[in-house]
Amino acid sequence: MSNTFGRLFQVASFGESHGTAVGCVVDGCPSGLPLSVEDVQKELDRRRPGQSSLTTSRREKDQASILSGIFDGKTLGTPIAMVVENHDADSSKYLKMKDTPRPGHADYTWRMKYGLVDWRGGGRSSARETVGRVAGGAVAKKLLSRFGVHAVAFAREIGGVECDKDFVFKKNIQAVIDSTPSRTLDKESSRMMGEVILEAKGRGDSVGGIIECVAVGVPPGLGEPVFDKLNADLAKAVISIPAVKAIEFGEGFNFPYMLGSEANDEFILKGRNVLTKTNKCGGIQGGISNGMPIVLRVAVKPTSSISKSQNTVNLKSMKKAKIQVEGRHDPCIVPRAVPVVEAMVNLVLADHMLISGVIPRKLD
Amino acid sequence: MSNTFGRLFQVASFGESHGTAVGCVVDGCPSGLPLSVEDVQKELDRRRPGQSSLTTSRREKDQASILSGIFDGKTLGTPIAMVVENHDADSSKYLKMKDTPRPGHADYTWRMKYGLVDWRGGGRSSARETVGRVAGGAVAKKLLSRFGVHAVAFAREIGGVECDKDFVFKKNIQAVIDSTPSRTLDKESSRMMGEVILEAKGRGDSVGGIIECVAVGVPPGLGEPVFDKLNADLAKAVISIPAVKAIEFGEGFNFPYMLGSEANDEFILKGRNVLTKTNKCGGIQGGISNGMPIVLRVAVKPTSSISKSQNTVNLKSMKKAKIQVEGRHDPCIVPRAVPVVEAMVNLVLADHMLISGVIPRKLD
Amino acid sequence: MSNTFGRLFQVASFGESHGTAVGCVVDGCPSGLPLSVEDVQKELDRRRPGQSSLTTSRREKDQASILSGIFDGKTLGTPIAMVVENHDADSSKYLKMKDTPRPGHADYTWRMKYGLVDWRGGGRSSARETVGRVAGGAVAKKLLSRFGVHAVAFAREIGGVECDKDFVFKKNIQAVIDSTPSRTLDKESSRMMGEVILEAKGRGDSVGGIIECVAVGVPPGLGEPVFDKLNADLAKAVISIPAVKAIEFGEGFNFPYMLGSEANDEFILKGRNVLTKTNKCGGIQGGISNGMPIVLRVAVKPTSSISKSQNTVNLKSMKKAKIQVEGRHDPCIVPRAVPVVEAMVNLVLADHMLISGVIPRKLD
Amino acid sequence: MSNTFGRLFQVASFGESHGTAVGCVVDGCPSGLPLSVEDVQKELDRRRPGQSSLTTSRREKDQASILSGIFDGKTLGTPIAMVVENHDADSSKYLKMKDTPRPGHADYTWRMKYGLVDWRGGGRSSARETVGRVAGGAVAKKLLSRFGVHAVAFAREIGGVECDKDFVFKKNIQAVIDSTPSRTLDKESSRMMGEVILEAKGRGDSVGGIIECVAVGVPPGLGEPVFDKLNADLAKAVISIPAVKAIEFGEGFNFPYMLGSEANDEFILKGRNVLTKTNKCGGIQGGISNGMPIVLRVAVKPTSSISKSQNTVNLKSMKKAKIQVEGRHDPCIVPRAVPVVEAMVNLVLADHMLISGVIPRKLD
Repeated sequence: MSNTFGRLFQVASFGESHGTAVGCVVDGCPSGLPLSVEDVQKELDRRRPGQSSLTTSRREKDQASILSGIFDGKTLGTPIAMVVENHDADSSKYLKMKDTPRPGHADYTWRMKYGLVDWRGGGRSSARETVGRVAGGAVAKKLLSRFGVHAVAFAREIGGVECDKDFVFKKNIQAVIDSTPSRTLDKESSRMMGEVILEAKGRGDSVGGIIECVAVGVPPGLGEPVFDKLNADLAKAVISIPAVKAIEFGEGFNFPYMLGSEANDEFILKGRNVLTKTNKCGGIQGGISNGMPIVLRVAVKPTSSISKSQNTVNLKSMKKAKIQVEGRHDPCIVPRAVPVVEAMVNLVLADHMLISGVIPRKLD
Repeated sequence: MSNTFGRLFQVASFGESHGTAVGCVVDGCPSGLPLSVEDVQKELDRRRPGQSSLTTSRREKDQASILSGIFDGKTLGTPIAMVVENHDADSSKYLKMKDTPRPGHADYTWRMKYGLVDWRGGGRSSARETVGRVAGGAVAKKLLSRFGVHAVAFAREIGGVECDKDFVFKKNIQAVIDSTPSRTLDKESSRMMGEVILEAKGRGDSVGGIIECVAVGVPPGLGEPVFDKLNADLAKAVISIPAVKAIEFGEGFNFPYMLGSEANDEFILKGRNVLTKTNKCGGIQGGISNGMPIVLRVAVKPTSSISKSQNTVNLKSMKKAKIQVEGRHDPCIVPRAVPVVEAMVNLVLADHMLISGVIPRKLD
Repeated sequence: MSNTFGRLFQVASFGESHGTAVGCVVDGCPSGLPLSVEDVQKELDRRRPGQSSLTTSRREKDQASILSGIFDGKTLGTPIAMVVENHDADSSKYLKMKDTPRPGHADYTWRMKYGLVDWRGGGRSSARETVGRVAGGAVAKKLLSRFGVHAVAFAREIGGVECDKDFVFKKNIQAVIDSTPSRTLDKESSRMMGEVILEAKGRGDSVGGIIECVAVGVPPGLGEPVFDKLNADLAKAVISIPAVKAIEFGEGFNFPYMLGSEANDEFILKGRNVLTKTNKCGGIQGGISNGMPIVLRVAVKPTSSISKSQNTVNLKSMKKAKIQVEGRHDPCIVPRAVPVVEAMVNLVLADHMLISGVIPRKLD
Repeated sequence: MSNTFGRLFQVASFGESHGTAVGCVVDGCPSGLPLSVEDVQKELDRRRPGQSSLTTSRREKDQASILSGIFDGKTLGTPIAMVVENHDADSSKYLKMKDTPRPGHADYTWRMKYGLVDWRGGGRSSARETVGRVAGGAVAKKLLSRFGVHAVAFAREIGGVECDKDFVFKKNIQAVIDSTPSRTLDKESSRMMGEVILEAKGRGDSVGGIIECVAVGVPPGLGEPVFDKLNADLAKAVISIPAVKAIEFGEGFNFPYMLGSEANDEFILKGRNVLTKTNKCGGIQGGISNGMPIVLRVAVKPTSSISKSQNTVNLKSMKKAKIQVEGRHDPCIVPRAVPVVEAMVNLVLADHMLISGVIPRKLD
């Protein structure tokens, strides 16, 4: 538990930000799936720091190695261990902060829980741990794509700037999104989001935003009532991502302002298929997928590490202190969190596809 | 899995709405905890149907029996099996709906998943399954109260009517809330909420709302990064409740509109204790409790079973159909969902108190 | 955990020997399986006390009730809760023993672990908890029989008397075994075993034995290396039964006296099927079933509750003490443990059939 | 599951015999435990091939790297990832055997289960996977030693040669055992065992044996009835080791030949401590440790890979075939399996010490 996610499709994650390496072990992937290190690298590159002026200046190539689980270009059904070494770690800035927890950060709670902490770069509480999520999610993504399931995430809103374009799934949608530095649906929204980010950065501050994720091709019947509902598992998966503080499905926090007659999705026939006319529930009813796109949105808080002066406490001297966080930090984590949200959604969907028997244990 | 929740403190839930009984088995409660059937009954009474004009007219006494796990008035550390028989089930209304799934309800997805379903009263997809949650949660509540932890939920908003009173924890706060039919912080808000509910009911419609839950006395250090964070487990627990479609912690969906300098909770000293000046994070940082109150809010959608005419599909004839849902339904589920949210929060907290070792396996 | 067994096919067991009831909740059984209370009762009757002079004189009808999970004579895919009330409990004999732990029994260790114990009839440490195993196993048995898998157990040896007949599977084999009081392969062996049991009983003593279990029809490919091997899961399942102290597969403890060339099972062709010429490995190679019958044997120790005088310690006064166990006890638990071994084997096989995808989640 | 072992103290294992690397991720070790790569290396060296003429001639240094989870020489409470690269893999001998499964080996069942298999050196079905067990077990061992718990295994019997010396725990007992090539209690037994091994090897054959493991210092109260009993978890752990086919606790398979009065361990007082006069139950009563040494014995079958000619089937041509296994194999796996048995016992004990709360989550 704790660093392992999933039941039949599992990811065991490891690694500290400035330690030797980060990575994960994927267990439960069916045998016979074509998989290469490039499939994983492609996803890690989307999460990698230093991609644009909007992100941290830490330079990590985030080169993945696969140590096991693949033979003749296919998965064996055995654990797939993946390692990414840390290279550009600069711990110098963290030494002087080690007894003064950063407001909004996990510094304080980790120290309360574990006593000993690796203060270099936040150790394991750093968002660098999401390398393991993305590497594991890459395997899930490859598996799901074979069964026609695709999850796509993007920045719906950053620092108050909303992209109000409707999301429409098409083959190249992810490439379109990736071509914008803010990871949103159009260039103009991305430009405006970028301005807000850089403005905050210039003031030594940071901004947050909203990430939307849509999964298409999900067959009806995924989800295990009553506790392991599909939305329950998705909620856990996504809320576990650093800086994510809220999640809603379909109309989510609009539901309280609707009447039942407005909130219900009526059933319609399309040929022999039963669909819903609307998709206010976001593709999940009673915790089980209904075949419509799954739609969720998450709130990402502004990066807690800011260079503005803040009040804190020196835990050694037990006296008041001031802190101005140095080191290299993203002024907005949303663009780089986009592939992480996708990864967690993919992990949950792959797990439920296996649990429900839609994906067999052995591929031909 | 699926009908079992928790790791060290577990609840295995069972039962269909119109079957013989509903209930649960609690496993992992430490030995030596004073526990009586009244402790459980008290909580079930708060969830029971037919408490006021705002709720369904189904009359169930929801009388609990405890079959095991208690001796000389104390828990044995062995499984506590609890059973509530179903008495006032009226399946007649459901027979004619059995092939026409109700919009917004789990009827369709359960049929896709399981093939055979118990159509009487919604079977296991009925919110009646929450009897098991509340019975299990009652045990967790008793355990937590011994360690000074208290979770209190209430209706923050119903059908657009907001109770804007600040929540302040005090000994009798739950009694105050329970004394209002809408389960909110003051009588006037409750009255207005009640009006909106009855108005919707009069039109054959329904409304939803927002439930807030605050847990006080939670020690710092609960939560298991990176995947089993305290907020991640709470999110899963609460999103698994029927009709809950969204959850936020602390400022939640406000975070995207704040700067980092506004969102961070600065640390202050109060004697030898480290506190935060504000509690925007809702008591959880980096997935670990920080000792401040845990604050979460959930969106509850309007009840899907409404008597207004809606479009659906007859799954047997595979033709278009109309449906007007009969049977006895709550025009707003929020008041009765309040103790269910508390129950799930208590279950998560009890589990994490055991996992972190704060609660021992054997009480004196 | 602890009182819940299995991953996809789960049994949550509950109940004390002299409490209100014992029973279990089965979760994960596919929907659409014809199942009645008679299917469960039939198995409970095989485990029931008071069946012959060889067993305890406690009179329990062990009448099962099913509270949930079945509709129109078929499983719903939802939890199946089963309850057996305790009627003929006589706690009087136990009161005077409550501070003097019985040698060989769990009295002492339960008290160390839990502090408070239900001393009446051994509480939950009584073999009466196996009612839950057998009820759960009955569901697994029904499910497996639909897929041609049958597990049959019998007494291979009791008190030094061996039944040396070869086990040959046939349709009515279980009825043949059940028709013998000692639950073995032939009447003559049963008679001799019975004599040894009664002789020991007459001296206020008890005997143990060896139970063999053979599962036929198991498809190749069950078992999840490296830790959840089929034999590993079977070992855990069977060793968890009260009084079982050892398990061996195939040649088991004979393997150390064989050469590799004697121990290996050579592969042969039978039509298009690959079989092994011998079955020394007991149907499992590398932790995975190979399609041959699974064969295991377990050692059952003599019942610890005997009326002979034994030394013990009074845990209250912390002084030496003597004990002569009264109450009603089986002088040999082997005959009644036979259906319990079967039940645990069936639970493991059903779980692995689901995990490997051989059994779907929804039956037609 | 499947490649992950344990609940609170978990090991996720990975790696194929001739792939890039083998290793594991340990999750759940408390923070603050002094741990170095030498602690792990020391144990791997005991398992390493090529240690004497009795073992395979494959030359692997089995050099461990620790990638995460340690800081300032102590554990962080975060996952400890450990990697051992494969260097001396020679796959040439395996190519010609790839369609002719070796009798007694997992070749056939893995192919049935997974379709695609890494035939080089047996892939993941090779006993080389036990590197992950031993590395994980080394962390558990270090943790347990701090709490005075020590598990020691040794060859009780090899190829019919028994070491009949009583096991007596002392500080240097492991060094004494390790100084004998057969890993037994005295040099003379070791010499005779070695002769039997080499004789079998000379004939192109192999032998098996019996490994005994004793754990001292185990506090009373470990074990979670009714399913997660300490002996049940130990049985699963140890039976999951390649080539292990049976396990017994205490008197084990002798119990069927004893009377209850002979089998029971009477309680005695030693000062204020309650002990048992004998230890026939092997330190576990009712699935819970009683504070006496835990004693278990396992049957190890002769190595299946032998150079004698055997019958098999060519799975490609589906015709009869002969096989003479080449490659480098241990003629007896017992000596190298000794540290593997210890590792699995240590993993179970560490897990139960955490579950029962004897070991806290944070060490000082």
